[in-house]
Amino acid sequence: MDYPKGLAGVVVDQTKISSTAGAHLTYAGYPIEELSEASFEEVVFLLWHTRLPSEQELRDFRADLVSKMILPAETIRLLLYIAKEPQHPMSILRTTTSLLGTTNDVEHDEPPKILAKMLTAIAAILRIKDNETLIDVDPNLSVVENFLYMIRGERPDAKLTKMFSSVMILQADHEFNASTFTARVVASTFADYYSCLTAAVSALKGPLHGGANERVFEMIEDIEKKQIKPKDYVELQLKKKRKIMGFGHRIYKNGDPRAFILEKIAAELAPQTGNERYFKIQQELAEYMLERFGLHPNVDYYTALIYHCLGLDKSVFTMIFATCRTAGWLAHIMEQRQENCLIRPNSEYVGPTDRHYTKK
Amino acid sequence: MDYPKGLAGVVVDQTKISSTAGAHLTYAGYPIEELSEASFEEVVFLLWHTRLPSEQELRDFRADLVSKMILPAETIRLLLYIAKEPQHPMSILRTTTSLLGTTNDVEHDEPPKILAKMLTAIAAILRIKDNETLIDVDPNLSVVENFLYMIRGERPDAKLTKMFSSVMILQADHEFNASTFTARVVASTFADYYSCLTAAVSALKGPLHGGANERVFEMIEDIEKKQIKPKDYVELQLKKKRKIMGFGHRIYKNGDPRAFILEKIAAELAPQTGNERYFKIQQELAEYMLERFGLHPNVDYYTALIYHCLGLDKSVFTMIFATCRTAGWLAHIMEQRQENCLIRPNSEYVGPTDRHYTKK
Repeated sequence: MDYPKGLAGVVVDQTKISSTAGAHLTYAGYPIEELSEASFEEVVFLLWHTRLPSEQELRDFRADLVSKMILPAETIRLLLYIAKEPQHPMSILRTTTSLLGTTNDVEHDEPPKILAKMLTAIAAILRIKDNETLIDVDPNLSVVENFLYMIRGERPDAKLTKMFSSVMILQADHEFNASTFTARVVASTFADYYSCLTAAVSALKGPLHGGANERVFEMIEDIEKKQIKPKDYVELQLKKKRKIMGFGHRIYKNGDPRAFILEKIAAELAPQTGNERYFKIQQELAEYMLERFGLHPNVDYYTALIYHCLGLDKSVFTMIFATCRTAGWLAHIMEQRQENCLIRPNSEYVGPTDRHYTKK
Repeated sequence: MDYPKGLAGVVVDQTKISSTAGAHLTYAGYPIEELSEASFEEVVFLLWHTRLPSEQELRDFRADLVSKMILPAETIRLLLYIAKEPQHPMSILRTTTSLLGTTNDVEHDEPPKILAKMLTAIAAILRIKDNETLIDVDPNLSVVENFLYMIRGERPDAKLTKMFSSVMILQADHEFNASTFTARVVASTFADYYSCLTAAVSALKGPLHGGANERVFEMIEDIEKKQIKPKDYVELQLKKKRKIMGFGHRIYKNGDPRAFILEKIAAELAPQTGNERYFKIQQELAEYMLERFGLHPNVDYYTALIYHCLGLDKSVFTMIFATCRTAGWLAHIMEQRQENCLIRPNSEYVGPTDRHYTKK
């Protein structure tokens, strides 16, 4: 073969969207630590235009996004069927993403409308799964406020909005991960945005890519339920040759820059929501993992607890991750379209040769 | 960048499924020319197992596939909504493919069931779009017979079945094309089969990958309608700097091996179905294109006419191509899963650096 299996370490294209160079995560050159203080709309604008908006642009962009968050009645009618299925929430999201691009005349929808519809659709899936009535978009709220309002049924306060905005911003992009690369491969055929996004959601469904935060919380619940010391839990798992979820990162050997910020959010949110015991377990576990293996928590580790604190079931954690990542996927689809070249590699045939078929 | 844009000419993995080495298309070492005489089920077995089935295995495989062609009532109920939408048939197929993996307990469906369901679902989409009642699977017919029966409402004769089997076989696989590579990228995250297939359909929707046969037939209709000589049509398009569809191939410089066989099928089918005038245009156009540019027709050129002869509208041609390619996609998903490694390349960041955000 010409190139390493899985294209590991291979640069396949250039990007102006995000970078992990030097184990620092930056979006269009801005450190993620600083951007986590921004508003979600500001960061989406940055990812899509590689520059920050002016105050006027930001107001317009926010108003535009919010105005587009309303779903067609026909889409909601179909969602009511699909979201009730007892299937994996990511299967439901995959169908829903495709469906958003199937009903009515949406073939030529642009990213603002698509992002807006995705957020509302995800909130709707959550409500339908919980047998709750759907909440209408409030035009006086921001995008993140509306998302929280639609999933929780009550308007969030400024503090919660700020926290969840940071969570969305921190997970909005991460260069050519498997789902983003999938979105770009599909974009390279000039397929429409919905096709690219549906493929990205499909890739994120795979356990080697998405789903880690769900398994982190399973583990924390397990430790809490069994009343076992995190340290003993680690040793027990080690004996069983099982992985401890939520630690280490291919790039961030000295700690995931997102995890440091998420830890602070979890520290604030956990006591407010009666989840201090889980946070305590996470802290002890993290300390021991560092001491024992030199491993730091990654982005999935604290988002798991944050999502739980928001009242979300662990089965939908990957779907919430998809909510955050949609802005980044759209940025990459746009970039791929700009200087497009069909992504079409070769394979090396290593099977049998010179065989002959004769009709029986 | 380390590697050519679009990974052109880059070998990214090994395969035992198909090869275009030396401009000969082979499946597991068998020349496509010989395999076009086989039955569809035989070739699917070959693609999935890299060996031909015994007579008993073939009988069992065929019976198994046919028995799995029945769709759950719930899926049909949703299809009735989705397929009626005035959207692009490939958008409908994308949603349908995902939907097949969303209703009921299908997360762990295996390739035979998935292929069987895809064929029935595509037939159902065609019938629903034409406001025709759905046809039930006939357990006494083969897979291809059932597919033709379900789309046309009448049981096909042996001749038509043989022709359409060849069409399906010829288009069943073609190493790492964009949709197959997409399926493999998604498979590399260990996402389920439906996720991989949905992503492949998404990629095929793009005009740089699928859709050529539709545009071939548009062109032939245009020539027929205008009563212009194919030769003059070519020169006119040339002046307008427009592409002549259905000619040339990246690999097959001396002619697409599939086109030679498809030409014979079109030659037989066109007069039988009152489409001789279209075939005549195609022959004259092909002769002139060879004389003028040394270009041969490719796989899309004659499939366009064949699909038209089957009574299909050109808007669904790419969907029929997807019907044929599903067997190959499934073969590649299985192969990717066997010796899996997450496909996750790197990008090179070329945007602005050292920017700083301050909260307004």
